[in-house]
Amino acid sequence: MKISNFIFGDPLKTESLASERLTKIKALAVFASDVLSSVSYATEAILISLGIVLSVTYTIPIALTILVLLFLIICSYWQTLKAYPKGGGAFAVAKNNLGEFFGLITAAALFIDYTLTVAVSLSAGASAIASAFPNLSNHIVAICLIILMFISIMNLRGTKESAGILAIPAYCFIGIIFLLIVFGLFTEPGIPKFVISEEQQMMMSQATITFLVLKAFSSGCSALTGIEAIASGVTAFNPPQYKNARITLIAMGIILAFLFFGITYLADKFHIVPNYSETVLSQIAKIVFGNNLLYYITQFLTACILFLAVNTSFAGFPRLASVLAKEKYIPSRFANLGDRLAYSNGIIALSIAACFLIIIFHGQTQLLLPLYALGVFISFTTSQIGMVKFLCRKKDKYWYLKAFLSGLGATASFITLLIIIESKFSDGAWMILILICILFFMFKKIHKGYTKTDNELDLKSGGLNKFLIKSKNYQPKVVVPVSRLHKGTLNALNFAKSLSYDVTAVIININNKETERLKLVWRAMNFSMPLVILNSPYRSIVNPFLEFLFEQDNRNPEKGKAIVVMSSFVPGEFWQNILHNQTAAIFKTALLYRKHDSEQTRVIVEIPYQMKLDK
Amino acid sequence: MKISNFIFGDPLKTESLASERLTKIKALAVFASDVLSSVSYATEAILISLGIVLSVTYTIPIALTILVLLFLIICSYWQTLKAYPKGGGAFAVAKNNLGEFFGLITAAALFIDYTLTVAVSLSAGASAIASAFPNLSNHIVAICLIILMFISIMNLRGTKESAGILAIPAYCFIGIIFLLIVFGLFTEPGIPKFVISEEQQMMMSQATITFLVLKAFSSGCSALTGIEAIASGVTAFNPPQYKNARITLIAMGIILAFLFFGITYLADKFHIVPNYSETVLSQIAKIVFGNNLLYYITQFLTACILFLAVNTSFAGFPRLASVLAKEKYIPSRFANLGDRLAYSNGIIALSIAACFLIIIFHGQTQLLLPLYALGVFISFTTSQIGMVKFLCRKKDKYWYLKAFLSGLGATASFITLLIIIESKFSDGAWMILILICILFFMFKKIHKGYTKTDNELDLKSGGLNKFLIKSKNYQPKVVVPVSRLHKGTLNALNFAKSLSYDVTAVIININNKETERLKLVWRAMNFSMPLVILNSPYRSIVNPFLEFLFEQDNRNPEKGKAIVVMSSFVPGEFWQNILHNQTAAIFKTALLYRKHDSEQTRVIVEIPYQMKLDK
Repeated sequence: MKISNFIFGDPLKTESLASERLTKIKALAVFASDVLSSVSYATEAILISLGIVLSVTYTIPIALTILVLLFLIICSYWQTLKAYPKGGGAFAVAKNNLGEFFGLITAAALFIDYTLTVAVSLSAGASAIASAFPNLSNHIVAICLIILMFISIMNLRGTKESAGILAIPAYCFIGIIFLLIVFGLFTEPGIPKFVISEEQQMMMSQATITFLVLKAFSSGCSALTGIEAIASGVTAFNPPQYKNARITLIAMGIILAFLFFGITYLADKFHIVPNYSETVLSQIAKIVFGNNLLYYITQFLTACILFLAVNTSFAGFPRLASVLAKEKYIPSRFANLGDRLAYSNGIIALSIAACFLIIIFHGQTQLLLPLYALGVFISFTTSQIGMVKFLCRKKDKYWYLKAFLSGLGATASFITLLIIIESKFSDGAWMILILICILFFMFKKIHKGYTKTDNELDLKSGGLNKFLIKSKNYQPKVVVPVSRLHKGTLNALNFAKSLSYDVTAVIININNKETERLKLVWRAMNFSMPLVILNSPYRSIVNPFLEFLFEQDNRNPEKGKAIVVMSSFVPGEFWQNILHNQTAAIFKTALLYRKHDSEQTRVIVEIPYQMKLDK
Repeated sequence: MKISNFIFGDPLKTESLASERLTKIKALAVFASDVLSSVSYATEAILISLGIVLSVTYTIPIALTILVLLFLIICSYWQTLKAYPKGGGAFAVAKNNLGEFFGLITAAALFIDYTLTVAVSLSAGASAIASAFPNLSNHIVAICLIILMFISIMNLRGTKESAGILAIPAYCFIGIIFLLIVFGLFTEPGIPKFVISEEQQMMMSQATITFLVLKAFSSGCSALTGIEAIASGVTAFNPPQYKNARITLIAMGIILAFLFFGITYLADKFHIVPNYSETVLSQIAKIVFGNNLLYYITQFLTACILFLAVNTSFAGFPRLASVLAKEKYIPSRFANLGDRLAYSNGIIALSIAACFLIIIFHGQTQLLLPLYALGVFISFTTSQIGMVKFLCRKKDKYWYLKAFLSGLGATASFITLLIIIESKFSDGAWMILILICILFFMFKKIHKGYTKTDNELDLKSGGLNKFLIKSKNYQPKVVVPVSRLHKGTLNALNFAKSLSYDVTAVIININNKETERLKLVWRAMNFSMPLVILNSPYRSIVNPFLEFLFEQDNRNPEKGKAIVVMSSFVPGEFWQNILHNQTAAIFKTALLYRKHDSEQTRVIVEIPYQMKLDK
């Protein structure tokens, strides 16, 4: 207990769950980490997809297209902030306006995306470190997992108080990349521009070029993941909440546009060729700053912002999980607050899922990226279509203009989504689509399970049992399974006798000798109840007992099912459980999961015999 | 159920456990497989330990020494067969004559040895196959595991009926190796004898030579493992049992001596140099028979005898485990007969342990062999010392001569044991010694646990509880934890009311809103019992409840501990358990494993609410 308190902190009282509000400055740092961190890998993703030949021509146009898309999506979210001032994000918008189906698809996509954000950001952060210290490049997975563990623990401790501190590296990152871009504009490239001969371009068919360009575009769209974060967290802002959130959203959009385009422009200017041992951002920083302290600071801050982006997912995933748990689409324990008032189960689930992803993909950012962005664009699409429906219903001032903007955003997102699916399908997007389907059906199945349970447990549906113990008119049937005659079984027999006069002791005969011995002791002890011996030719203890019990149930059925009184044994130390046969637990499980009707209730009485504790 | 019946066979009745007796011919095949199979790897082990230079001089003398040792051990076991006609083997001899300490050390050594026999025989068998079909040499581990699985299933089915069939390959193996040796005597070696210059021998110090020779000797002693098998299985023979067993033992000794020495002689004659891709036996067979059908038959039969040796361990290990379980040194479930009248738990434990060994050592016979033989020689030593003590006590006719022979055997075994430890210590023998210690302390700890339990549960030690339910003079205290008011909890409250008038319902307040709602419903339903609301500022459900319960226990302590009546929920499908909070199970575990005194018994009543099954 003390060790866990040291690691996770002392438990917090429920009262202290006061919502702490954020200023715009802090909020920008908290919500923008995810989206800004993509600056460090989005450009690289475009270059890798294009290849050396095409990148000369197409890098800048692709970056510009992504900026247009950014503008449209921000316009649409600008509406959402006012329409859903209570937060809620894409799931709430989609479910309220488009119904359960689209809501759950959105939720599934978001779950996957949060998990991928963690995996991608961690591996990109580890790559940033390994670019600066090449000795570490064989230990990417280990670095990822250590930092993942650290961030999980931080989040299990609850990270509310740390929002202020986290703002510092975020702004430092913005500052240094800004500096990098400005300096970069005045730095002359060392190597001359790569000139492509006619033949080289002729070698590619138009179809190949189109495919590669679309692929590069969809890879670059990973820059846009994280925009939705502000919409889910409107309530965290100082009042007037939606207005402050809107200002922050626009500031975020401008900063992202500048940093992303700046880095892409520099990569193009310096003819950067991506390679697996050094990131594109690292190469640019080395050219602009030289291999000095400023370069190492850039790498360090890049790693920081990537790890902060992980943190954003750790805020989003458990909150979404708690919403789904409250609506009974996932197990209700995801809605429980842990000792430190964090949604611990969601945090743990996210850590485990991300851990698997990192190990499976060996922490390779470029292998994970094709899976990424797809989920986000599903949620962009559904939530913006939802907004169109919402605005058309509300009919506020200028509603047609607003709905048009959202509709445009939705259309652009949907087209991007189709491009991503088309161009990344064989790279892994198919996995994501399958996973979304699986999650969707899981949500539905769980929801059905809960609904059925609630209906059946409802008091209005009748079927309650009356119990009357040992009155003149009523003697419940009691059955006591006995294996040996020791203190535990004697306690059980005594309790059974106090419940009723109609008690039957039962032994299952597996070993003739032992049964004979037990019969002798039984006679000597002169119990005032019958002892039934059940033969078990196949040495099963469960089946003969259950058969006998069901016979008893059918005898005088108006008395209800027979009550089972069992002694169980609780050893002094937990490990000693393996020494004992757990007969009581086996009987109980067999009884409860055997075919049954729910009309009458079986009462199971356990008389534990607790050994004295050794310590 | 049906699939498992298909794989493992239909359950057998206890009655059919008639002991099937074996003729000498069948018994030799069953018991000699293990010891004869060592012919395929013992010579190779000697050659590898000696190296090319020394093998020229020392191979034959070492083989002769091992034959002397074989003679002494067989003499000693010849005594044991008459002295312990009920079988029992080394564990029984050591425990009865030398006490618990040596008995348990012997048992630990035998357990390890049985496991190693499985691993060594499987990997040697797989090597034999791979020598004939070099394509398979990268799949040794897979071959081992597939055959292990097959043999495990065979043994779980019970293999009594198959003893006759198994005799065929055993005798074929003896036949073909006999043929190989006889033909080999008349085959001229292709390569001339390796001549060692003075210098080459001078390069080695005398100490190195001594060490290597001793190491080769102890490696060769793996030929002797398996001799003990007959002594453990005397009861399986036709009467007069011990006489038939003695004849079989001597026959086995003669065959082993001939085959082992023959192969070693041929290896020396043909100047075989061991290599990792082809076994020594395979090389000899190729030289003598040529690369034809006879060669493939030899390899096939070698693999067969090795897999039969695995089977011997699968007979020995579970039987030893059942003996130890009956004497309460290991969990008692090892003494249970499975559906097919085999000691299933022992078989499964052996399979798992062997599986680990094979995977850890990549199925490399020569890596496993240094661990081997040590355990057997511990059991040879203790059981023969035990025999000396036994014979000195009995004072039969010629007892001094018999005791002298056993003593000589014990001394020789003990010296061999020391040589094995000395020469193989750093190769892995240290692991075996540590493992024996660990097993020994485990046996002791488990035995202590059982003894303590038996003493405390003994009826003579007093401390039984009387229970009186709902009489005029007596009202037990009953506590019912309630989370929501549904049919399940109502059943629990009704049952509690039938037990006593002193019932308290308890809710733990984690969420103020929900608690208020529950209070309203409670008032509306007009229960005739108090409802206690326990605040839980830290959202724990267990601690506030237990504190309240212990308070109740202390109120009117003469009434005993408060009875806990809980409703629990049994979903229609097993997987749905993850959807529910398992509060009843959590309370029960917390209650039973919290600090407690064993004087008074807590009664726990579970009122399961069983959902209708979906199917």
